[in-house]
Amino acid sequence: MAEQKEQWLSSLQTDTPQEGFELAIKLSRMGVKATQPNVDVLKKLRPEYAHDAFGLTAASQVIALNFQTISAANDYWK
Amino acid sequence: MAEQKEQWLSSLQTDTPQEGFELAIKLSRMGVKATQPNVDVLKKLRPEYAHDAFGLTAASQVIALNFQTISAANDYWK
Amino acid sequence: MAEQKEQWLSSLQTDTPQEGFELAIKLSRMGVKATQPNVDVLKKLRPEYAHDAFGLTAASQVIALNFQTISAANDYWK
Amino acid sequence: MAEQKEQWLSSLQTDTPQEGFELAIKLSRMGVKATQPNVDVLKKLRPEYAHDAFGLTAASQVIALNFQTISAANDYWK
Amino acid sequence: MAEQKEQWLSSLQTDTPQEGFELAIKLSRMGVKATQPNVDVLKKLRPEYAHDAFGLTAASQVIALNFQTISAANDYWK
Amino acid sequence: MAEQKEQWLSSLQTDTPQEGFELAIKLSRMGVKATQPNVDVLKKLRPEYAHDAFGLTAASQVIALNFQTISAANDYWK
Repeated sequence: MAEQKEQWLSSLQTDTPQEGFELAIKLSRMGVKATQPNVDVLKKLRPEYAHDAFGLTAASQVIALNFQTISAANDYWK
Repeated sequence: MAEQKEQWLSSLQTDTPQEGFELAIKLSRMGVKATQPNVDVLKKLRPEYAHDAFGLTAASQVIALNFQTISAANDYWK
Repeated sequence: MAEQKEQWLSSLQTDTPQEGFELAIKLSRMGVKATQPNVDVLKKLRPEYAHDAFGLTAASQVIALNFQTISAANDYWK
Repeated sequence: MAEQKEQWLSSLQTDTPQEGFELAIKLSRMGVKATQPNVDVLKKLRPEYAHDAFGLTAASQVIALNFQTISAANDYWK
Repeated sequence: MAEQKEQWLSSLQTDTPQEGFELAIKLSRMGVKATQPNVDVLKKLRPEYAHDAFGLTAASQVIALNFQTISAANDYWK
Repeated sequence: MAEQKEQWLSSLQTDTPQEGFELAIKLSRMGVKATQPNVDVLKKLRPEYAHDAFGLTAASQVIALNFQTISAANDYWK
């Protein structure tokens, strides 16, 4: 049997805009994790940008980009 | 009963473009808060970019991205 | 009576592409102002990026993002 | 008589994709000029990023954003 | 006979959103490889950003942009 | 007779997604060249970002933006 990868993204559709925003946050984190899969390294790096004004703005920008995708996927919850 | 999360984003629709811009500002701040939920840390960091020309431009860029989303969600208030 | 906020954005529609570009510049500045409302601080910071090649490129990028929004709102003035 | 502003952007439509790319370059420069209208200052700053690998990449990014707008305005010259 | 280039991108369509995210990661890496095709150099550089909070955020941003493209190509897997 | 400019972009349509990605790379390079037309300077600067993790990520980001345009122009090669 083939190896089973963890399934973490089955759909871009969410019930509410707020759940969509949370999914955008998740996508942003998975983008980071794709580049650095070592959770221990990630934990060590986290304070670096979570306590830096520019790091936080950059993180918010990635979320904004992913929220554009999720919002379009949900027809803007109209 | 399940824990109730704070509801802060019930709709992307707004009455006017200006209210849409204000919602874009709110989304940008919530993106920051998602990465650094500690309000005391945020308050301490705020002067860092609010008094830095590049930090302000970066903040304006995140707002621009979120305003793209909100504007599309409102069919550009046509 | 409720406090009246200044109205500065009543519509995304403009008569010409050039007026749309000017509105994009205005949105970019309002994004900065949302983060730093103190006009005196802003005036002091302005030379920092207005005399810096990278600051100017970053400012042009925010205008480009907002011009994307305004252009779509005007169906590209077709 | 009212003061006449220079007209520099009468249309987003171009005959060919290459002319569209040239218009995207023009928009990028006008975004810079909107922030720093002093041509002498601009000329002095130009070598700063035109001889810097990161400055050139950033300039190319702004052109890419404006080319997205122009391409959509021309229905991708299909 | 003409030289055969390696084929690595035959379609933007994927079966699931998660496979689409993986394709977005691949596009981001191919964008890096286009600029620096020397695999040995790439391997040496990798730790630089994979152990840097800002480098990881930047990498996540490129993935977010490519995921926008892939998601649109798949009509958001609706 | 009028001077003939070099024609380098006659269409955004390509046969395959991979050719579209190559065109996105070309657009990114032409955006750099528009800012710094001196090929000797460009050759000298190239190692600066081609051997820098952040420079490579930034280059990949510009390609991602241009690939968004090219993909839309080709209706995502559906």
